[in-house]
Amino acid sequence: MSGNSFGRLFRVMTWGESHGEALGVVVDGCPAGIELSAADIQHELDRRRPGMSEIASERREADEVLILSGVFEGKTLGTPISMLVGNKDVDSTPYDEIKHIARPGQADYSYQMKYGLRDYRGGGRASGRETLARVAAGAIAKKVLAYYNIGVVGHVVEIGGIRAKARSEEVDLKEIKRIADMNAVRCADPEAAVQMQELIKRAKREGDSVGGIVEVIATGVPPGLGEPVFDKLDAELAKALMSIGAVKGVEIGIGFGAARMRGSEMNDEFYIEDGKIRTRTNNAGGILGGISTGEPVICRMAVKPTPSIAKPQRSVDMEQMEEVELRIRGRHDPCICPRIVPVAEAMVALVLMDYMMIMRGGRLEIMRQR
Amino acid sequence: MSGNSFGRLFRVMTWGESHGEALGVVVDGCPAGIELSAADIQHELDRRRPGMSEIASERREADEVLILSGVFEGKTLGTPISMLVGNKDVDSTPYDEIKHIARPGQADYSYQMKYGLRDYRGGGRASGRETLARVAAGAIAKKVLAYYNIGVVGHVVEIGGIRAKARSEEVDLKEIKRIADMNAVRCADPEAAVQMQELIKRAKREGDSVGGIVEVIATGVPPGLGEPVFDKLDAELAKALMSIGAVKGVEIGIGFGAARMRGSEMNDEFYIEDGKIRTRTNNAGGILGGISTGEPVICRMAVKPTPSIAKPQRSVDMEQMEEVELRIRGRHDPCICPRIVPVAEAMVALVLMDYMMIMRGGRLEIMRQR
Amino acid sequence: MSGNSFGRLFRVMTWGESHGEALGVVVDGCPAGIELSAADIQHELDRRRPGMSEIASERREADEVLILSGVFEGKTLGTPISMLVGNKDVDSTPYDEIKHIARPGQADYSYQMKYGLRDYRGGGRASGRETLARVAAGAIAKKVLAYYNIGVVGHVVEIGGIRAKARSEEVDLKEIKRIADMNAVRCADPEAAVQMQELIKRAKREGDSVGGIVEVIATGVPPGLGEPVFDKLDAELAKALMSIGAVKGVEIGIGFGAARMRGSEMNDEFYIEDGKIRTRTNNAGGILGGISTGEPVICRMAVKPTPSIAKPQRSVDMEQMEEVELRIRGRHDPCICPRIVPVAEAMVALVLMDYMMIMRGGRLEIMRQR
Amino acid sequence: MSGNSFGRLFRVMTWGESHGEALGVVVDGCPAGIELSAADIQHELDRRRPGMSEIASERREADEVLILSGVFEGKTLGTPISMLVGNKDVDSTPYDEIKHIARPGQADYSYQMKYGLRDYRGGGRASGRETLARVAAGAIAKKVLAYYNIGVVGHVVEIGGIRAKARSEEVDLKEIKRIADMNAVRCADPEAAVQMQELIKRAKREGDSVGGIVEVIATGVPPGLGEPVFDKLDAELAKALMSIGAVKGVEIGIGFGAARMRGSEMNDEFYIEDGKIRTRTNNAGGILGGISTGEPVICRMAVKPTPSIAKPQRSVDMEQMEEVELRIRGRHDPCICPRIVPVAEAMVALVLMDYMMIMRGGRLEIMRQR
Repeated sequence: MSGNSFGRLFRVMTWGESHGEALGVVVDGCPAGIELSAADIQHELDRRRPGMSEIASERREADEVLILSGVFEGKTLGTPISMLVGNKDVDSTPYDEIKHIARPGQADYSYQMKYGLRDYRGGGRASGRETLARVAAGAIAKKVLAYYNIGVVGHVVEIGGIRAKARSEEVDLKEIKRIADMNAVRCADPEAAVQMQELIKRAKREGDSVGGIVEVIATGVPPGLGEPVFDKLDAELAKALMSIGAVKGVEIGIGFGAARMRGSEMNDEFYIEDGKIRTRTNNAGGILGGISTGEPVICRMAVKPTPSIAKPQRSVDMEQMEEVELRIRGRHDPCICPRIVPVAEAMVALVLMDYMMIMRGGRLEIMRQR
Repeated sequence: MSGNSFGRLFRVMTWGESHGEALGVVVDGCPAGIELSAADIQHELDRRRPGMSEIASERREADEVLILSGVFEGKTLGTPISMLVGNKDVDSTPYDEIKHIARPGQADYSYQMKYGLRDYRGGGRASGRETLARVAAGAIAKKVLAYYNIGVVGHVVEIGGIRAKARSEEVDLKEIKRIADMNAVRCADPEAAVQMQELIKRAKREGDSVGGIVEVIATGVPPGLGEPVFDKLDAELAKALMSIGAVKGVEIGIGFGAARMRGSEMNDEFYIEDGKIRTRTNNAGGILGGISTGEPVICRMAVKPTPSIAKPQRSVDMEQMEEVELRIRGRHDPCICPRIVPVAEAMVALVLMDYMMIMRGGRLEIMRQR
Repeated sequence: MSGNSFGRLFRVMTWGESHGEALGVVVDGCPAGIELSAADIQHELDRRRPGMSEIASERREADEVLILSGVFEGKTLGTPISMLVGNKDVDSTPYDEIKHIARPGQADYSYQMKYGLRDYRGGGRASGRETLARVAAGAIAKKVLAYYNIGVVGHVVEIGGIRAKARSEEVDLKEIKRIADMNAVRCADPEAAVQMQELIKRAKREGDSVGGIVEVIATGVPPGLGEPVFDKLDAELAKALMSIGAVKGVEIGIGFGAARMRGSEMNDEFYIEDGKIRTRTNNAGGILGGISTGEPVICRMAVKPTPSIAKPQRSVDMEQMEEVELRIRGRHDPCICPRIVPVAEAMVALVLMDYMMIMRGGRLEIMRQR
Repeated sequence: MSGNSFGRLFRVMTWGESHGEALGVVVDGCPAGIELSAADIQHELDRRRPGMSEIASERREADEVLILSGVFEGKTLGTPISMLVGNKDVDSTPYDEIKHIARPGQADYSYQMKYGLRDYRGGGRASGRETLARVAAGAIAKKVLAYYNIGVVGHVVEIGGIRAKARSEEVDLKEIKRIADMNAVRCADPEAAVQMQELIKRAKREGDSVGGIVEVIATGVPPGLGEPVFDKLDAELAKALMSIGAVKGVEIGIGFGAARMRGSEMNDEFYIEDGKIRTRTNNAGGILGGISTGEPVICRMAVKPTPSIAKPQRSVDMEQMEEVELRIRGRHDPCICPRIVPVAEAMVALVLMDYMMIMRGGRLEIMRQR
């Protein structure tokens, strides 16, 4: 309710500032009896960690996760799972000199107006580092979803105008993940990936940054998931994804493409395959009337270029109330799309997990019946 | 929680099926002491009503709203405001013959899978007629927002690929509304409006339909509105708009355009004007870090072409489990963008109203201090 | 959130003022496929109706319920069920002359301070008539609970110091209901019932009123219902019952009696019966650690004497800000315990239904598996 | 929603098992700009700590609190405040031998039925040690409430049938606190306190335990706090207090005493004092129609005798499904009433803080206007 929690039956609350003691999350409502270890979480955290290649920011942290509650003898208890990651490789010096300056494209000004004060070091609560807690929580959701054979995979489909070639209709999540994990931009089209990396390096050299588009696909989602009217599955996904820092747009299925289509093109024709009702195309992105159809759930989000750029920018000193020239130092990704991938997967997993529990209830027995 | 309510402190719950007795909404949390009459609501309902021109569907209902509670001697009591509209011009005949058929692009199949049964007449709960309740609730939100000098206006910016010319930077809501209200497609560019209407008529003649893009702008939003992390103002707007039936994408500010920009272009430069901090551009759409900046809040949504088209379509009979050819009869808008406009305004108003109450509290005295 | 809704997955929102157009409730989250008719609701409403005997208030209303949505061809759709009851036998005259006076023991003063204005007629939103909406919603909950063989029965156990003789350990809900329904005070001890009625009549003659204690018992509640820490089953029951107008205290199982017991007396000994774990006594009232044990859930509430009494009282005119003598006219129950019975049953049913859905999920298939 | 969070705008989520790594709480929604240090929290934690006297349990922990986020340069940021306390003095040995036995009066059996597994060491999540997190969160609420001159004080009014003499009408919180803090049972009547301690020692010698009644009073609560119908201030207090482990009953104002009163006695007469409307008595406990009146808010709760007693008890081995004799070892308070006092204060503070924010909004400026 106060902004830092998400979900209803599978509910997470995150906390922590970028340069504070630690960041963390409490996951409440996880079914009991699920095998869970710190390694499960660590694996996902490592995927979002910066410093993995020359195109990423240079902050280097082990980001080692601690599980403080909710797991006993290797299994979830059904009680809240509290996890935290310490902030170790912290250097607040670059922020001291700009602490009163509203960095363009950042939350400095709006936070100052909302709270009257803020932790200016590294973006404080508004830092991208906050997403670490989302990924940790999402790792648990993914683990439980796997019990239902629901898979969630993200990849980069566009950076700075360079588009990956379209995937064929039949979604093969493992293949997408396999290829995307092989390159630093997490693009499932190896050729486009090379071009994207070049573009990012060029932007970095110029003290600038680039944006792009990330896609997340979920397969195995049973039909009937979602709620009517306001809590439609696509509405909740839109909220979940738009809540990620740099995201400026969200679309489901064919998305904005629908605005330029005829009804006769847009409508996905139903047919019967192996005794099940399916659609030949999936412009709807697996959701009709806010309820899943059983086809893959597909969503994409527009990621803006990293606002922290080396190029000098005009801005305002909020304390002195005067215009200034700002030069941002510090470590910043020239393109955050690759790092958004595991975060976006986590958010989709959190949404699906929550709706699965609303449909199936929170008990292990129910989970096991599947 | 179960899908039919929205908002936290300013909370609405809607109900009703398209061909049932009535549709309605209960608005809980409206501050006391606001002047309110049925006419305030009716005015907005009339804007969403079909049958207003040759390009719209032909169902003709007065849609007369009744206020059953929460208002006493012309003022809101602070207690729930219950409103309802009867379903009078109902003809369920066209639906009888297709009651087991999953209409492509509609919620028939997914609802059947979720609930095991459904009211097939006129789309039941999944009908666009449901939005009537949103508009009624939004009318109250708009009324209260006006106390804070917050204005919310929507208009159509694209239909079937025809785009309205871009508005200039300085937003003049009254002017947009004045022009948009003069034509049947609610487009603030009169020349584009003519082309859009031609296109819609052509699609209708061909038994088809077209999609488009609707924009909503809110001015007067004070800086500091919104919550961090998950309940960002843009995240909640995304959910609110994506929850509208035919919407497949939502963007804030420059939206998907951000994916193709450099950081140095995207970042809105801060400057000082009349002792206040402002931005020279508004690519952010009035929101940074999920919190409002004081600049106009701008959002756009992709609206798919109406799924109910006269052209024959292939589909499936869910009872017989066999493929069939479907011919939809009945009354349908060939383009629902114009009718989405008041619905989208309502959803934006509901979001802003809720956040205003979270920031300012629910008491009349607070309201009056402004 | 704004006070007029209750429940999470099985969620109700109520509305209406005592002398307004109507009162009603929307029930969101009811599983689909449940047989439901207005008669099911009407039966429960008739139980709470006043004017049933000489000891009750004399307002006579048919209180005929209308179901406006959510039911189709006799079955629930899974969509919101909107119900309303018109206010017909309304006489606001007695309230005109006291409209600025804070009636002792009533919500006039606190509502005036909260809202700055109020519907003074018949108590407005704070009227006992509001409970009609609870009973209507509770009737649906009871209907669904019956699918799980969960029964909920209330009865009066004390009025004005006269206590019904204690029931034996083994709870027989049908027997309690059968006897309690035979007398106007809804007491399962026929002898005590006679004394209670005498006491109430005497109080009425003296222009006064009396309080009492109501008990609600639920049987068939499966073990494992409830949530840990804050959302304990007993905590939610306490909230549900304390939210009923005249209730000043709530207890579970032995309740306040526990304060005077030793641990060795209080602890319910576990044993095995027919292969199931049971307790020999039920001081816990069927709940341990906030989670149900499978034993009957037992709660009791203290009901204050009706505040509206004929005797003259000292009070304050809030408009003139002067002390006055108040003589209340109009129709009032000298003891509301009997009418609280169906309301308390409804609240317990709403709580149990909500927790059942949290445990089992909201789908019909799940419901059918039981 | 999943049981471990409380509050709406001022929202807490707690986590941790008794013998796990640590316990903690995240407080979301605290207004920004409040001075806060670990010492503020520690002071309250020390009040609930066991091992303070010969009548309490002997587990000795420093219970040193760490603040990990949400505070910067000594002031709250408005972001989540994460606090944790390590579990250091842990000895799980006594629990190994009884890990399959359902201890009477404890949550072993119900947790086992709900979750299918549990952390049996020290009661796991159902341990009284969980209340430490409530007290830490409550310490923050109290600090903010003090800005509004709202005070919250608890004391023991009855133990094992021995009652403290009634306080006079005019509430003097400081005096109650001063006296109650001088004795180990936290009773504001020094003579009764001596008797209570004797009684507790006797029970302990006999391997038994005793229950009692705790009262919490809040002064300075402005009139108009609370919400109508379901979220009445007293309803939320009832939930808050009933959610404390050993509480079996809650009452507001005169409470169960109301069941034996006449309306003419129960009704608190309104009068005018210094231009303000007040009541001569306060049987209502400061709440009418669920909304505060400005008089002191008074609530009491029945605390059952500690279920963990040294005396042998009959019970069941849940694994072997056989009846057994149970002898509980380990460290247990023979009466937990004194330790419930700070927990109950915390819960009342959390409720009041949440409602203050709903009424006044969450901004510092609003806070400062008071």
